[in-house]
Amino acid sequence: MPRQPALAVLLAAALALPAAVAGADAPPTRTTQEVLEASTPADWRTPDPANTLYMDLDAGRVVIELAPDFAPQHVENIRILAREGFWNGAAIYRSHDNFVVQFGDPHADDPERARPTGSARTRLPAEFERPARDLDFHPLPDRDGWAPEAGFVAGFPAAREGTDGAAWMAHCYGAVGAGRGLEADSSIGAELYVVTGQSPRQLDRNITLVGRVIRGMELLSAVPRGPEPLGMLEDPARHVPIRAITLASELPAEQREPIEVLRTDTATFDAYVESRRNRRDAFYKRPAGHVDLCNIAIPSRTPRD
Amino acid sequence: MPRQPALAVLLAAALALPAAVAGADAPPTRTTQEVLEASTPADWRTPDPANTLYMDLDAGRVVIELAPDFAPQHVENIRILAREGFWNGAAIYRSHDNFVVQFGDPHADDPERARPTGSARTRLPAEFERPARDLDFHPLPDRDGWAPEAGFVAGFPAAREGTDGAAWMAHCYGAVGAGRGLEADSSIGAELYVVTGQSPRQLDRNITLVGRVIRGMELLSAVPRGPEPLGMLEDPARHVPIRAITLASELPAEQREPIEVLRTDTATFDAYVESRRNRRDAFYKRPAGHVDLCNIAIPSRTPRD
Repeated sequence: MPRQPALAVLLAAALALPAAVAGADAPPTRTTQEVLEASTPADWRTPDPANTLYMDLDAGRVVIELAPDFAPQHVENIRILAREGFWNGAAIYRSHDNFVVQFGDPHADDPERARPTGSARTRLPAEFERPARDLDFHPLPDRDGWAPEAGFVAGFPAAREGTDGAAWMAHCYGAVGAGRGLEADSSIGAELYVVTGQSPRQLDRNITLVGRVIRGMELLSAVPRGPEPLGMLEDPARHVPIRAITLASELPAEQREPIEVLRTDTATFDAYVESRRNRRDAFYKRPAGHVDLCNIAIPSRTPRD
Repeated sequence: MPRQPALAVLLAAALALPAAVAGADAPPTRTTQEVLEASTPADWRTPDPANTLYMDLDAGRVVIELAPDFAPQHVENIRILAREGFWNGAAIYRSHDNFVVQFGDPHADDPERARPTGSARTRLPAEFERPARDLDFHPLPDRDGWAPEAGFVAGFPAAREGTDGAAWMAHCYGAVGAGRGLEADSSIGAELYVVTGQSPRQLDRNITLVGRVIRGMELLSAVPRGPEPLGMLEDPARHVPIRAITLASELPAEQREPIEVLRTDTATFDAYVESRRNRRDAFYKRPAGHVDLCNIAIPSRTPRD
């Protein structure tokens, strides 16, 4: 019986395979795999352990890179909270479909049961944006609907209003933000959310982003959605326990995760972006010639011993 | 101790609350809630049962609306497959983080074990796009990076190249497509995927979309990600069983789901889109003044008895 391929379908849609057939008029774009295979050690960076959080769940470890260039006061508070064990025994208490998971203290609203925030500051300014000047902003070639310019700053998806205007991190998949109430300055970094759905760029410049998940998103994105409004998991039995959140710099070097992330300010990264703009593997019949900021997954790897 | 709001955070980010404070210079945009509350019965439609699939999982029901205007031959084949019970006892066998789930026959590649496809056709043409003429295309006000124009056609996110060019459905969250191999015409609609991640618009015009999930996405998006490459769930113990996929028109009327979907060709829908472009609830300090096609979730509801 004639069969269609099943398990192989979408293969090339997900991974860039070497082009089986190159069209006569195809530009000399390389596939993603070709670009990454040709990368050199200088194309990769190791995130600073002082900016790296390990979030340990029963299912495994999520690794977050913090962005002090964008949210210095929140990041410093988060370092204090991690050092003092604020999240140890806390939980993911929200999973809102096509939007976010959120974690921290499920009882933060109840003064009788709330976890102490120790020596962390209890009031911080909003850090929604910062001046673009002095930032090494690496722009994308494609236009962005949400901002005058989109690109990357030291590994973080970002946007800006020209070189003399404001710059801010973008709410792409994996972005980590500081939950707040209605007041702009009501976040302290204790209750954090992670984007698990279509990039909610409308939140850009409306809430303080503090970093980005660089490994383990699949542990957060598959948390069963909360049945209550906003995806809240009100039944404690539905909470996803957090064993601990640890600042990597608090651990001996040999206990740190050997993660490398592709630099976003190199010719290799430009070639990587081009390989996503125009897919050259055999699956694609019509390369898009475009990519949105949040469609660019930044590769990471664990170096071989 | 000063506490930040925790469980209430992001409240207004997800649902549009009535504006507590309207800026003096704010345009008269209504909130999403205000728009929906002011809608009339004529603003809603009931999908045609002949274009509606019920996908029954142990966890509940997923409802898919098919789009014969875009993929008539695939839709007709899918109706045949559903009527003949092709998917009853089949499975979700792929969950690729930030991309898709895929379902059908896990053994489709193995002639010894493959399910018979009955009287369904075993070869179909690619239905990647169609002429835009004769389509009631309702454009969005905002520019789209991936296509000259983006908008909606009878409830489906779509794009086109002008009124005389091609039109196609867009790979937004919840889009249902027909998995294929490397050949453009290698899909028959038996192996289907659903977008669960950041809209992979690069697949537009490269694969046949057949419809959209209108209810139950949260049952698909939370499927634990597959450990194998491309998110494959190779261990049958990880498969998510499909009890049945049924065409609604095969059921007596009283057994059909009473779902209504907001029409996308009305003044109410325009106001809804505007409420997403410029959020006017108290949470937002800086409305974006923009929305991407795939950030517009199309409301559905179950009419009250």
